[in-house]
Amino acid sequence: MLRLKCESNAGWAAAALADLDALLIDHVHCEKKAASTALSLINRYPEKTLLVEQMIAHAQEELEHFALVMACLKERGVALRRDSADSYVNRLLDHARRDEPLRLLDALIVAALIEARSCERFQLLIDALPGGALRDLFDGLMPSEARHFAMFLSLAREYFSPDEVEKRLEEYAVIEADIVRTLPNEPRMHG
Amino acid sequence: MLRLKCESNAGWAAAALADLDALLIDHVHCEKKAASTALSLINRYPEKTLLVEQMIAHAQEELEHFALVMACLKERGVALRRDSADSYVNRLLDHARRDEPLRLLDALIVAALIEARSCERFQLLIDALPGGALRDLFDGLMPSEARHFAMFLSLAREYFSPDEVEKRLEEYAVIEADIVRTLPNEPRMHG
Repeated sequence: MLRLKCESNAGWAAAALADLDALLIDHVHCEKKAASTALSLINRYPEKTLLVEQMIAHAQEELEHFALVMACLKERGVALRRDSADSYVNRLLDHARRDEPLRLLDALIVAALIEARSCERFQLLIDALPGGALRDLFDGLMPSEARHFAMFLSLAREYFSPDEVEKRLEEYAVIEADIVRTLPNEPRMHG
Repeated sequence: MLRLKCESNAGWAAAALADLDALLIDHVHCEKKAASTALSLINRYPEKTLLVEQMIAHAQEELEHFALVMACLKERGVALRRDSADSYVNRLLDHARRDEPLRLLDALIVAALIEARSCERFQLLIDALPGGALRDLFDGLMPSEARHFAMFLSLAREYFSPDEVEKRLEEYAVIEADIVRTLPNEPRMHG
């Protein structure tokens, strides 16, 4: 359903759970960057009213998650740290086309795949955790990631033909899988 | 209470109300930029937990306002347009100090003054409008701007002495008033 071409490397979940504070800090930054990306899409495509409305709602939801994960960090007595480069996202964006309208198509497909990968990884964390507050947190967030994946694709189909979306999603899912296979097993949502 | 050193130029409210669509479009962008600024403060000061928490809540509230004003634009059959340069904000930021910790103090004081000016201008619009949905909208938003002004100052007092905050607020309020006196009367929240 998520259209991913590979699973995360074996050992990622164990590495992630070995440093939960680092994982949660990275996760907070992911939620923040998702909200920022939504705002930058509004900046770039202000005249596309459906996109603007969905990106406002999306940014709001990502900030709610940000607040949830921050509360969880606070309970653990951990302060946020500065974000470090996200090579997964940067390498995905390296393949994005620069000229409109394909720039928009690629932005939406990249956003969809990032959500899909988050969803897959939340499931791995849920499966590996024995229960408790953190498992509940991930359990609560996981369905949103799947919904966001579908939302970005349906937004793409508003502005591009189903065939164009399908073809580029197939291509980009292969690129995404190639990147994921090379990621080190680290306590980061993507890496 | 808002510590502003001058009123908006006579004629601003009339110019603003003469092109309500343009005013609302500018207003949407102000809400969006306020949310973006909150996220960039989180990026810059992740270890300051109180700031992070307040900036998440602030960004959430600004996005709620964004959605309200977008709904209002949609009802008027108006699509958002690309944002244009905000010379008021840019000129305010020209006076901000670049080195920490004073960079943070100035960022908080500039944010406070922008909120104060928005509050003053909402009141001018409320006074000039005969009633109806738009007046209700501004009436609903106005108290938030006053609250945000107080929030940014109280945040400043968390990280700086009351005297430092007071002195810089006085200085910056003079700068702000000098800028406002030179602004053309345009259908923009700031100009």
